[in-house]
Amino acid sequence: MMTVVTFYPSGRTANVQAGTSLLDAAGLASVEVTAPCGGEGGCGECRVQVKTGAVECVARGCLSAEELQEGWVLACSARVTDDVTVYVSENALDAPQIVTGAASAQQAETTGSTPAAEPTAVKYQIKVEAPSPDNSFSDFERVARALRATRGMSKVVCGLGVLHQLAAVLRRKDHEVTVTMIDTGAGPHSNDSAEIVRIEAGNTTRRAFGLAIDIGTTTCAAHLVDLTRNHIMGTAAEYNGQLSRGLDIISRINYAKLAERREELRRLVLGTLNGLIQSLCRNHTVETDELDNVVIAGNTTMLHLLLGLDPEYIRLAPYTPTINHLPLLKGKAVGLLMNPEAFVGFAPGVGSYVGGDITAGLLQSALGTDSRAVRLFLDIGTNGEVVAGNGEWLMACAASAGPAFEGSGVSCGMRAAKGAIERARIDPQTGRAEISVIGGGKPRGVCGSGLVDLLAEMWVHGILDPAGKLNPECAAELTRPTKSRRVHAYVIVPEAESATGEAIVIDELDIQNLLRTKAAVYSACSLMLKSVGLDFSALAQVYVAGGFGRFLDLKKSILIGMLPDLPLDRYVYLGNSALAGARAMLTSAAARRKAVELANRITYLELNVDPSYMDEYTAALFLPHTDINRFPTARAVRLRGHRGFYGTADPETGRR
Amino acid sequence: MMTVVTFYPSGRTANVQAGTSLLDAAGLASVEVTAPCGGEGGCGECRVQVKTGAVECVARGCLSAEELQEGWVLACSARVTDDVTVYVSENALDAPQIVTGAASAQQAETTGSTPAAEPTAVKYQIKVEAPSPDNSFSDFERVARALRATRGMSKVVCGLGVLHQLAAVLRRKDHEVTVTMIDTGAGPHSNDSAEIVRIEAGNTTRRAFGLAIDIGTTTCAAHLVDLTRNHIMGTAAEYNGQLSRGLDIISRINYAKLAERREELRRLVLGTLNGLIQSLCRNHTVETDELDNVVIAGNTTMLHLLLGLDPEYIRLAPYTPTINHLPLLKGKAVGLLMNPEAFVGFAPGVGSYVGGDITAGLLQSALGTDSRAVRLFLDIGTNGEVVAGNGEWLMACAASAGPAFEGSGVSCGMRAAKGAIERARIDPQTGRAEISVIGGGKPRGVCGSGLVDLLAEMWVHGILDPAGKLNPECAAELTRPTKSRRVHAYVIVPEAESATGEAIVIDELDIQNLLRTKAAVYSACSLMLKSVGLDFSALAQVYVAGGFGRFLDLKKSILIGMLPDLPLDRYVYLGNSALAGARAMLTSAAARRKAVELANRITYLELNVDPSYMDEYTAALFLPHTDINRFPTARAVRLRGHRGFYGTADPETGRR
Repeated sequence: MMTVVTFYPSGRTANVQAGTSLLDAAGLASVEVTAPCGGEGGCGECRVQVKTGAVECVARGCLSAEELQEGWVLACSARVTDDVTVYVSENALDAPQIVTGAASAQQAETTGSTPAAEPTAVKYQIKVEAPSPDNSFSDFERVARALRATRGMSKVVCGLGVLHQLAAVLRRKDHEVTVTMIDTGAGPHSNDSAEIVRIEAGNTTRRAFGLAIDIGTTTCAAHLVDLTRNHIMGTAAEYNGQLSRGLDIISRINYAKLAERREELRRLVLGTLNGLIQSLCRNHTVETDELDNVVIAGNTTMLHLLLGLDPEYIRLAPYTPTINHLPLLKGKAVGLLMNPEAFVGFAPGVGSYVGGDITAGLLQSALGTDSRAVRLFLDIGTNGEVVAGNGEWLMACAASAGPAFEGSGVSCGMRAAKGAIERARIDPQTGRAEISVIGGGKPRGVCGSGLVDLLAEMWVHGILDPAGKLNPECAAELTRPTKSRRVHAYVIVPEAESATGEAIVIDELDIQNLLRTKAAVYSACSLMLKSVGLDFSALAQVYVAGGFGRFLDLKKSILIGMLPDLPLDRYVYLGNSALAGARAMLTSAAARRKAVELANRITYLELNVDPSYMDEYTAALFLPHTDINRFPTARAVRLRGHRGFYGTADPETGRR
Repeated sequence: MMTVVTFYPSGRTANVQAGTSLLDAAGLASVEVTAPCGGEGGCGECRVQVKTGAVECVARGCLSAEELQEGWVLACSARVTDDVTVYVSENALDAPQIVTGAASAQQAETTGSTPAAEPTAVKYQIKVEAPSPDNSFSDFERVARALRATRGMSKVVCGLGVLHQLAAVLRRKDHEVTVTMIDTGAGPHSNDSAEIVRIEAGNTTRRAFGLAIDIGTTTCAAHLVDLTRNHIMGTAAEYNGQLSRGLDIISRINYAKLAERREELRRLVLGTLNGLIQSLCRNHTVETDELDNVVIAGNTTMLHLLLGLDPEYIRLAPYTPTINHLPLLKGKAVGLLMNPEAFVGFAPGVGSYVGGDITAGLLQSALGTDSRAVRLFLDIGTNGEVVAGNGEWLMACAASAGPAFEGSGVSCGMRAAKGAIERARIDPQTGRAEISVIGGGKPRGVCGSGLVDLLAEMWVHGILDPAGKLNPECAAELTRPTKSRRVHAYVIVPEAESATGEAIVIDELDIQNLLRTKAAVYSACSLMLKSVGLDFSALAQVYVAGGFGRFLDLKKSILIGMLPDLPLDRYVYLGNSALAGARAMLTSAAARRKAVELANRITYLELNVDPSYMDEYTAALFLPHTDINRFPTARAVRLRGHRGFYGTADPETGRR
């Protein structure tokens, strides 16, 4: 019997056989439940609270009678007998899936809830001297003096919007005020000065909010951050409103040739961002104009289009952007729904095709630190960018990957939002897909991580051949011809189980799109290393970032030949590292300096000029590669997994 | 026979008896004609060119036959026989009347046409490297590198407006561009950085324009400045559009209590300033958005109202402005018709009643220089401000003078514009006024300098008594009762000779207004010095600034008791020193620093708290003063001048 396990607060679900442990179900649903004792029922760390439905408890470990009565169980030893809802600790939803602990230090620094060490926006409560015949300084000068006396700030400025409120706010609560100070010296044009972007009567230090934004070609995402606790309050994502004007960067640039179209594109992405802002603020009872600090990461074209800059010369050789290191800009100049006097910072870019999203993402990695160990960073978005290097050198290149893994250009594809299949495995007995859906309920489509899973599983179990064609011997209920596209498709979810009432299928054209994307990524990595005389074995660590959704399965990424076949412990999956990096820059001046330093150090490599690029790319269009010897692990899995066109479960591809 | 002499390019006129020398006529019309030999016809320096009409030449000095044929004459020895038009050198119109040479050094520095030594806005023509595979820097970075390489600029920034144009402008003329750089480090919050506010293709270094503005409570004035030559191209003035919402500062502040009224006042003064800008730009074929640098001087309330800041606490003890040292603000933030990316700088103020107009004005003086000599500076506008001090101390106070000398609150009063009587004397034989009209033609009213002249002449010739009452024994054609105000008036210009067809008269209420203004000024000076244990005799120099128009007669100012009775050679008349100071700040970073230094050094003295203020003020309401012993020169002149109610000419009050 199949049961549905729903985990809160994430709302993630797993459809599993009765008898499965909650820990296994959590694994399938990508909900982090810690089980340091290895699931032996001994440590009690995996405790979760069952809210509805029944489970069978094998071990009770250290749980008290009271806890048991409240529904607390050990996930490792509780087996589902019916549909259940389960609560796990609140942090699980936002925690990235870290395969190895190597990057934990950076991760903790940027995702923790401790106050930022070197914040770029701070609220100070100050007592300003009241004016008197003996203290005839202006309101502003008295505020500046209070900041000098209590905070040692020598140079304080403010804009007209703050000056407008100064007189009234000072006198509202007897010259007790809270000022929000922005460190304007952290930008690329450092001048060690601070600007007051807000002044409020009394003590308002407990409310301070910021926003980290990633503008992708396909998807925009934002974190609402409580600046007082350095804590992510909420996250929202939406397709970039410019999608209707071109799926990739080049078509977007072509569309932007006329000034009025640039203005249209600017309004479209602003609409998307302001929609995210409104939704985040509404959900967390924050006024949009309480947003006192914003950092935006995005590729060079996206930042140009956001600011109305002509991207034309990004497209034309020698590929020249107007600017890579944008200065701090006032909220009102950018057009975001935020405190108009506050600043928007931008992650600094390297060039036309390695933008601020990459430098921000690199902040989540150990690339470029003092070590001599060579590390690789790849960001698989609509463009694929690859960075390699160590403390001595850093090199980057770009490959036009396409938006397939962001759910665009794939018929069943969707963003990693509610209703997306984010994990999948294929039952080796039936050939049917077992899925995990974001937010639970019936699925509407498949996001990037689900697509990787499906591709790998279909190949392992012989549903797909190395060229990406469906096995004609598959059972009739598993595949069907598509109506309009004249190719065959695999049925992931039949009509009855889909949220839309239509079957969710992946067809051979979708698969070709996915193959092109993974081939672009792999060949870029391969060529980049070749250009410096290295091969994959030289890599101490590989960071994978991208718009897959939250839980890319790295092993399956290797199986499809997107990632090189290296021991899994060399991989770190970073998720949306651009957004995480923007968040780091939002709360840390050190992170801002580090991003600028990285951007300045990176040398850009133009792949197109390498004559072997096309060969590498074409060879990578197969599953996993024309040269299967490059993927010994994949070959082994395939050999074991392939029993007929859908074989028995392989322990390595089953549930963990 | 009366003749009219019109001087060009100023357009000034003098109505003089036939037989008067051109040099005398020029003196009456306040047109500067140099005659170093004393009018002996020897040096040839006073040469002017007669264009129409006839003169009788007594001496021909060094003039050649050709010059004589072209109409050149020596002004000292040419006597008018008919109406004539005369050309004099072009600089005469703008040159302030300097009674003594003491301030000439400063004057020359700020009014000359030599390039500014330390300009705050400069155009540089630069050759930017074209992008190439070997030079993949962004457009902005390549511009910054060119500025670094050729100009040694280490920190360059620019706003979005400039970034928008960068790509296209660079490529328009093969990467030859001209950038306008603003030294943003010269403001009160110095950070030694420079911002590009304009970029143009090719070489446009020959066109660079700036604007110096003085916002007075009654009158706004502006210089259009050619920044390449540090030369004033034109000057325009207009009543402040806020006048309809209150004549003086206090009534303006009372009106501004509601936010929507503050916005109305902001729009009104912006309308006035933008009108001046449009008129100046139209007359000199400059586009308004070519204005790349603007400096504004104004009293504290005027600057608050221009920027929409609440002036409420300026009015209430302890008289606290929101801000004294305004930061540089972008043109678009202020709302002026100018390059929206360029900056507006503001003369720094001292406090609520000693504003940036005063510190700007002080730049035209030697106050506060190293010397120990005590100097006095007085600015007689709608408010009267007095500053005294030397290299060791500086002290300022304010007196509510009222706008009488700016032509407001006086029935015949007008701004120093075309049609204003700016100089006058009374014919001792007839009691009639002989006048000089700005721009020539029939007069429309009387500006400040004309009012001072009239007041002095009427008193000297017994038309006015010391209390400001008209002598009832005056000839019937000289005085008449006013229609509505139930007092008597002196007829300056009869109906037939007036531009409006109505007689121009000054009545006893006008005179009371003028007496209040001059009393406020004199008593403030007197008390300020008393507060530091000095009297007027201690003064090495007295600077007089104000909205009188161009040519205040200092001697007559003493005769009416507005200025202390000191030897004339201690006086310097500065005219609109706030405007001249704004112009100095427009073109010199040193002047900006100096203004900040002065503002920081000045101690403000509150006159109202001095119990003897009312006594001093009341005593000064007489002509020249209740204690005539304070004005020995005035007494002597009056004794000689008063023969009956209008006596014979006194040599000292006649033409020079």
